[in-house]
Amino acid sequence: MGDYPPRTVRLGPGAEFDRIRAAIASGGELPAAVRVGPGDDAAVIEGGWVLSTDLCVEDVHFRRSWLSDREIGYRAAVTALSDLAAMAATPLGLLASIAVPDSEGVDLDAVQAGVAEAGRAHGASILGGDLSRSPGPLVLDIVVLGRTSWPVLRNGAEAGDEIWVTGRLGASAAAVHAWRQGDEPSPEAREAFARPMPRISEACCLVEQEWVDALMDISDGLSGDVGHMAAASGVKVVLQAGWVPISDAALVALGAEGALEAALHGGEDYELLFVTDPGVVDVDLFAKRFGLDLTCVGHVLEGEGVWIDHGDGEPRPLERAGFDHFGSVDR
Amino acid sequence: MGDYPPRTVRLGPGAEFDRIRAAIASGGELPAAVRVGPGDDAAVIEGGWVLSTDLCVEDVHFRRSWLSDREIGYRAAVTALSDLAAMAATPLGLLASIAVPDSEGVDLDAVQAGVAEAGRAHGASILGGDLSRSPGPLVLDIVVLGRTSWPVLRNGAEAGDEIWVTGRLGASAAAVHAWRQGDEPSPEAREAFARPMPRISEACCLVEQEWVDALMDISDGLSGDVGHMAAASGVKVVLQAGWVPISDAALVALGAEGALEAALHGGEDYELLFVTDPGVVDVDLFAKRFGLDLTCVGHVLEGEGVWIDHGDGEPRPLERAGFDHFGSVDR
Repeated sequence: MGDYPPRTVRLGPGAEFDRIRAAIASGGELPAAVRVGPGDDAAVIEGGWVLSTDLCVEDVHFRRSWLSDREIGYRAAVTALSDLAAMAATPLGLLASIAVPDSEGVDLDAVQAGVAEAGRAHGASILGGDLSRSPGPLVLDIVVLGRTSWPVLRNGAEAGDEIWVTGRLGASAAAVHAWRQGDEPSPEAREAFARPMPRISEACCLVEQEWVDALMDISDGLSGDVGHMAAASGVKVVLQAGWVPISDAALVALGAEGALEAALHGGEDYELLFVTDPGVVDVDLFAKRFGLDLTCVGHVLEGEGVWIDHGDGEPRPLERAGFDHFGSVDR
Repeated sequence: MGDYPPRTVRLGPGAEFDRIRAAIASGGELPAAVRVGPGDDAAVIEGGWVLSTDLCVEDVHFRRSWLSDREIGYRAAVTALSDLAAMAATPLGLLASIAVPDSEGVDLDAVQAGVAEAGRAHGASILGGDLSRSPGPLVLDIVVLGRTSWPVLRNGAEAGDEIWVTGRLGASAAAVHAWRQGDEPSPEAREAFARPMPRISEACCLVEQEWVDALMDISDGLSGDVGHMAAASGVKVVLQAGWVPISDAALVALGAEGALEAALHGGEDYELLFVTDPGVVDVDLFAKRFGLDLTCVGHVLEGEGVWIDHGDGEPRPLERAGFDHFGSVDR
């Protein structure tokens, strides 16, 4: 495995990312055994090992009234595993740290069973973890370990490239919207939130086919995550509003305009976002192998920032970034 | 690097460890690339990589009135790094997941600066992490990555071996005792709690000298941790009460009897506990190199459990285990 300069990746705007930048800056020089340092979806270590960690906090990332305890564990693990997909890495193991509320009501066995189920489903054995009481919310921090022979980073986008996404977006945000209104989401929307699918095989296929110059998963919303990719690559991205693949569940729940908002900004779809040379993607091959859409959603240009074209040929800056835990978005 | 059977290590009694056992059982078979699975201080992966994660929860592991924000970050990182010392591994990097209370008052920059300072002090670069709001306590989960050519596990103790510890015990517990009484601990006791020293170089020296058959760090208290080692190795341990090295800070704060209790059960000393053949340890070499005591505290016998001899030649079962987050001990 070679080296992947730059080993520290630039992040897009947002208060959470300012904090991460500060932490990176204070960390000093990286040792030679570190192939990819902080700022991408995961770190990469000598031997092709890929390492990431993902927090999941009650009343920030989920509410207990929305999910069963087993689903809470399952979802925390698959959203962490999605960071391995984002590096085109194959999962090997996970470590689960869980802080359990003092108050009655959380079934830790069920939470752990959900974590283990997600691990089994995607080839990640439980390698360790930690447990604690919590005087407040249920907190999970899931560490994932995977391996790749060639990690694909966020910083490979170049002017002229196409921007693609897997699957359809917005269903997870539609579920959150319904719960917040006091409604029950449709089964499809609920499934998208509760059991997102980390696109691990799909990411490996994209790499095998040599279709990807840059890759990440969509956890913070297409707009925010494409902003991270643009910043990491030093390019401008123009999204075509009419091309964004919107899930039927979002369309039914939110209407056309609301569903586009959900698809652009909602986050937590855990689909893949990738950048490739024009004309190389074979949509039929992907549909046949995975039963999954691949959709071109825009282009890479010289410049900076994320822009959106609503079909009038006049791209405008795309204002709202994705879900930022330290911004003003309360969820 | 060879293989280290058994790859899953048995844990001592305690509710927290029952939970960890359940999680291990549900994890299924371990992949071949996993050299040491869950149950020891850390997992070991092909290539000699050592991986562990450690939760640190406000009002469970510390109170904010006891430590500055920088000390909270520093302490969380060094206590996690102590798990690498426990495997005789050299630190390479760390990932810091931090959930920050919504309420005013936590300086995240200071917490992160403390984590980074601890990393720099012990050779661990910041490789990543995650940030979130917390609707409750400040929560840190520190993932540590290290490397070793020969990890030393907990399960190598055999009848006839001697049990040794580094340093002196009880000062950290003396600090907690003072804070709980509404007093300020002595500077020495406070330092032991706020800035424990992960015994990384010391562990590597023990391995180089071929003095260790089993090794772990003392995080849950000597009594509890020696119980884990006894269970992992399938042996009985008899501690000599009069041999336990007690810190002066604990003696001054707690008197002889209280200091022995603190040294046996207090936890969070982060000294090393190791087992070796009789007569091989060179105390002077260690004192000269590290300025640190090495003390034999007991012996390994055939049987099971942890026993203590108060000098009357009649060992009794040592009742209280170490700090168990899911037991009745509230701290």
